[in-house]
Amino acid sequence: MSGQVAVLGAGSWGTAFAKVLADAGRDVVIWARRDQVAQEIRTDRRNSQYLPDLVLPERVTATDDPGKAITGSDLVVLAVPAQTLRGNLAEWVGFIAPDATLVSLMKGIELGTTKRMSEVIVETAGVAADRVAVVSGPNLAPEIAAEQIATTVVACPDMDRARFVQNAITTPYFRPYTNDDVIGVELGGAVKNVIALAYGIAAGMGLGDNTRASLITRGLAETARLGVALGADPLTFAGLAGMGDLVASCSSPLARNRTFGEHLGRGETLEQAQTATRQTAEGVKSSLAVRDLARAHRVEMPITEQVELVCHEGLDPRIAVSALMSRTTKPE
Amino acid sequence: MSGQVAVLGAGSWGTAFAKVLADAGRDVVIWARRDQVAQEIRTDRRNSQYLPDLVLPERVTATDDPGKAITGSDLVVLAVPAQTLRGNLAEWVGFIAPDATLVSLMKGIELGTTKRMSEVIVETAGVAADRVAVVSGPNLAPEIAAEQIATTVVACPDMDRARFVQNAITTPYFRPYTNDDVIGVELGGAVKNVIALAYGIAAGMGLGDNTRASLITRGLAETARLGVALGADPLTFAGLAGMGDLVASCSSPLARNRTFGEHLGRGETLEQAQTATRQTAEGVKSSLAVRDLARAHRVEMPITEQVELVCHEGLDPRIAVSALMSRTTKPE
Repeated sequence: MSGQVAVLGAGSWGTAFAKVLADAGRDVVIWARRDQVAQEIRTDRRNSQYLPDLVLPERVTATDDPGKAITGSDLVVLAVPAQTLRGNLAEWVGFIAPDATLVSLMKGIELGTTKRMSEVIVETAGVAADRVAVVSGPNLAPEIAAEQIATTVVACPDMDRARFVQNAITTPYFRPYTNDDVIGVELGGAVKNVIALAYGIAAGMGLGDNTRASLITRGLAETARLGVALGADPLTFAGLAGMGDLVASCSSPLARNRTFGEHLGRGETLEQAQTATRQTAEGVKSSLAVRDLARAHRVEMPITEQVELVCHEGLDPRIAVSALMSRTTKPE
Repeated sequence: MSGQVAVLGAGSWGTAFAKVLADAGRDVVIWARRDQVAQEIRTDRRNSQYLPDLVLPERVTATDDPGKAITGSDLVVLAVPAQTLRGNLAEWVGFIAPDATLVSLMKGIELGTTKRMSEVIVETAGVAADRVAVVSGPNLAPEIAAEQIATTVVACPDMDRARFVQNAITTPYFRPYTNDDVIGVELGGAVKNVIALAYGIAAGMGLGDNTRASLITRGLAETARLGVALGADPLTFAGLAGMGDLVASCSSPLARNRTFGEHLGRGETLEQAQTATRQTAEGVKSSLAVRDLARAHRVEMPITEQVELVCHEGLDPRIAVSALMSRTTKPE
């Protein structure tokens, strides 16, 4: 293939994605915020906190110096927490080569600005939108690390660049499809976190598979409504980055938003759920940002509204579910 | 409300649907093929073979005489096994009132003719298509019998009639939406059985949630392709009767096609799976009919093709999965 790839962020998805890139033939440098993590990857080829069972390929190394990772990379993969992207990227801009492709693995909407991750990248890095690609799909990191077959979507306004990224990440166990609908692919991933939280709440309350399947379906429908208002193709949401990602996140006990929601559905407070899972699920923050985005575009998103009320206003999940279910039935 | 309803078929869905109708205010007569089942419903208000935990409402009774059930009913609900519809209905036509609405609960494609259930009804009963409504959605019968909240879709070319059926089955736990896309709603239900079988095979093989979510998504995509070729609205497949029903059937251990597929995925033969589950899943038969329908309309349905080969040609499921996964990646 060609040059070095920088993966910025050593969480579970960044780390698994580095393995995919290496298995597809690339040399990869992971940037880790903490030197301890970078050292473990460098010396033991392991990231024991996030993916304890994975031994990384030899082509992967790591550093805590962003300049070392980015300089000389033709692919710059961004895999930091959504709400930290703007601050991080502002410090990294000077290292990025003029024709490098920026790839976003992040699923979220920026609080306050309600911008998608690719919009934050374009703004902060000062690059044209066709230099930014988004990778999103049913991609639970531990399964990909274990080489379980997975598909994904590479979205970019520039289809040549989409195919370039596709080639850089195609392996026997990882199958990327291309798409030019960046808005749809990105929204699918961001709103998914909110709907998976709702699914977890329903599961924690002991609701059955009919109810949960309705919730997923209506959740994807409201995601698609928002997408259409923002210029996305509604059919993107029926694809791997919409339905596929949502179904994987709702089905898997490995998925963080679903698990976090289950704690809430069992009657725990936000603080108790945070303590139990040792983190705040991205959907908690995204519910606020997605709700604001929906209101700004006058799109009805009843499930997102209820998740926001449960997470941020302390609404009892039972009241939230009964509010959803007492809505008038109408044509689908 | 109004008159009596006939529910023809005392399987689990017919029985649970009779409860819904009664809870919505209708008097219901179930026709059971076996007198023993009719007697148990009449005397104990139970159908212990199919829904052992359910006590039916007092408004429900039963008979093994189809004339008694149908005569005087303004709603005639058909809930017999898909492949027995034509033969049964031919014997019942004389009892059906001239303006009665015929409701299909059946999910399947007729072998040989490759007709949808509503087409078989129109042909056999000699009624206009706008007298036939289809009810389909994420409706696992045991959960509905337990009054777990569920949604469904009522599809009819005549929207007044769709709303009439909607009113006849709306209860606090059962929420029907109307739709005029009969082809899409019906195909969603029929092909779902085939895709749920594929999902079960993948689960039985131990494949992960990423792979299974991809399979569901690509399975719904090929269903939508067939639907569009037959005149359906592609967005119907993203709704409750498409994605919703498929997700419920793939998630639930109660779902028959998924369970049957798991046996095949663990390496059992069709005969062993039949013995273990004491039945043949509808998807086994439908895979043949759906494949024929797809070929007749020159639609590619790779997942359906592989399911058919596994079920009817004894193909090793591992070879089927590897055939699916080695297809060239392309735009989604």
